Amino acid sequence: MVPIHQWIKIKAPATVANMVCGFDILGFAVCDPYDEMEMRLVPRAENVPAITIINIDEYNLPTQPEKNVAGAALLALLEESPKEFGFEVKINKLIKPGSGVGSSAASSAGAVVGANYLLGNIFSKDDLVRFAMNGEKVASGVKHADNIAPCIHGGVTLVRSIFPLEIITLPSPQLYVTIVHPQIEVRTSDARSILRQQVLLKDAIKQWGNIAGLVAGLMKSDYDLIGRSLEDVIIEPVRSILIPGFDELKKQCKEAGALGGGISGSGPSIFMLSKTKDIALLVQAKMKALYDSIGLPHHTYVTTINPAGVEIETKN
Amino acid sequence: MVPIHQWIKIKAPATVANMVCGFDILGFAVCDPYDEMEMRLVPRAENVPAITIINIDEYNLPTQPEKNVAGAALLALLEESPKEFGFEVKINKLIKPGSGVGSSAASSAGAVVGANYLLGNIFSKDDLVRFAMNGEKVASGVKHADNIAPCIHGGVTLVRSIFPLEIITLPSPQLYVTIVHPQIEVRTSDARSILRQQVLLKDAIKQWGNIAGLVAGLMKSDYDLIGRSLEDVIIEPVRSILIPGFDELKKQCKEAGALGGGISGSGPSIFMLSKTKDIALLVQAKMKALYDSIGLPHHTYVTTINPAGVEIETKN
Repeated sequence: MVPIHQWIKIKAPATVANMVCGFDILGFAVCDPYDEMEMRLVPRAENVPAITIINIDEYNLPTQPEKNVAGAALLALLEESPKEFGFEVKINKLIKPGSGVGSSAASSAGAVVGANYLLGNIFSKDDLVRFAMNGEKVASGVKHADNIAPCIHGGVTLVRSIFPLEIITLPSPQLYVTIVHPQIEVRTSDARSILRQQVLLKDAIKQWGNIAGLVAGLMKSDYDLIGRSLEDVIIEPVRSILIPGFDELKKQCKEAGALGGGISGSGPSIFMLSKTKDIALLVQAKMKALYDSIGLPHHTYVTTINPAGVEIETKN
Repeated sequence: MVPIHQWIKIKAPATVANMVCGFDILGFAVCDPYDEMEMRLVPRAENVPAITIINIDEYNLPTQPEKNVAGAALLALLEESPKEFGFEVKINKLIKPGSGVGSSAASSAGAVVGANYLLGNIFSKDDLVRFAMNGEKVASGVKHADNIAPCIHGGVTLVRSIFPLEIITLPSPQLYVTIVHPQIEVRTSDARSILRQQVLLKDAIKQWGNIAGLVAGLMKSDYDLIGRSLEDVIIEPVRSILIPGFDELKKQCKEAGALGGGISGSGPSIFMLSKTKDIALLVQAKMKALYDSIGLPHHTYVTTINPAGVEIETKN
């Protein structure tokens, strides 16, 4: 256990959920961007809140624990923790909320991984995912693990089942990730409501062929197979209409050498996977040029898959 | 190239398609049962048929090449082969037609692998699959590779895409297979026509979680993960009504220790996978007892996944 009042530093990475054909099941963590957090244990006392959230960023997010994603995750964790401790949490959110790269998941996952470290690692990763999912419920109304799973486990993760929760980490070769975040708003609820509740069996079969191919490609380090399998015939054709220039951007990125990619989470960010850093940078240039040409403000990142997930650094 | 008129012997194994959640994409070859074939090159001459089929079994299948599955496959191969040769083929069908374990695929695949060997292995496996699919068209009206792919490649195969054809072999741990063939007829066309053309998105998501889990489980040699992933929420609930006692049989097999299983191909055979031979034998006993209790004649096999597929043996 870490001594009371000693701060630790936490790096909580962005994550990409709905990895092309792997809607609702496949996601991965990236090295950049990430949230910075600091946490410490505090003694519990009457009339002192068990959880104190301090935002040190510009986003003015709620600080009441039950309305804050990190707070909600910590409240769930506290129910199964030693009663004599509470937490103070400083959050410097560097992952823009609403960008579709797991901003809320980073706060929830960072908080519970930090808390667990402070308490002497008494919880399993599955426990931590379970706690952090309460943060997702605050953020989107749904207790999903799409971003929490890769944020806590690192690498590429498969959520095979939510009830009961089962997360499988998948080995993957070195992959470079280019992300563009066009500055538009896509509400998760809108992105979900436009999906059809029924799909054609023949499309579902095509999709699961691609999922099987993607998992095999990652585990065999077969870049060509990964590339051929990065195809989504069910969700992307519907959701991509919410993102300006999506089809053209994807076409140009693939022509520049990207293996493939798609919508990150429920958007609006778009990610592309590449075999080399040079290609990932070229892909970034294509993204910038396209959004510049239509006057759409945007951020881009060139990064890699993050094998570690949330990382702890004790403060000197 | 094998000298003209020299017979070779061929073992063409049974195969299980539609591996539970992997409808239309995942299949595997087994060591038993298998068809025995003999083949030789013959010189082409006017008024002599390019292909002669000789059945040495009880099934009285057609011997006109274009109506015989092995013949149709060989006709496709001949179109891309040296014009001076034809083939004589003897077929001893030990895999009962209509049993749902790839009887037609064994003849087609065995014929083209044998022909290729006789010609000095001039074709790739993908070519051979392509030729053999013409045999499936004769048998079922559809050029599918569900059984052809594992029969030719051996092991567990993924047909990621039919057009263009892409087959990926998946490593798998040692798995024992128990098969029961209840002596009823299930027509492939009936089994296909009762499927719904639309499926719920939420069911499709569950299915692709299981497919990803099954592929990962096979590649990680994680038997528990394989077992948990052997679940089909889309096809089996519909098709299993065509097979007497299906639910009870599956329940008893799993209670006996089987990892899981389901309908082989479009039925009526049912297969179960087990970690050990002892469990596979116990599963066989449960199958026999259940079908004996309802007076349904049946055959059973206890075998393993066949890593080799079609095998050639030159005759002394």
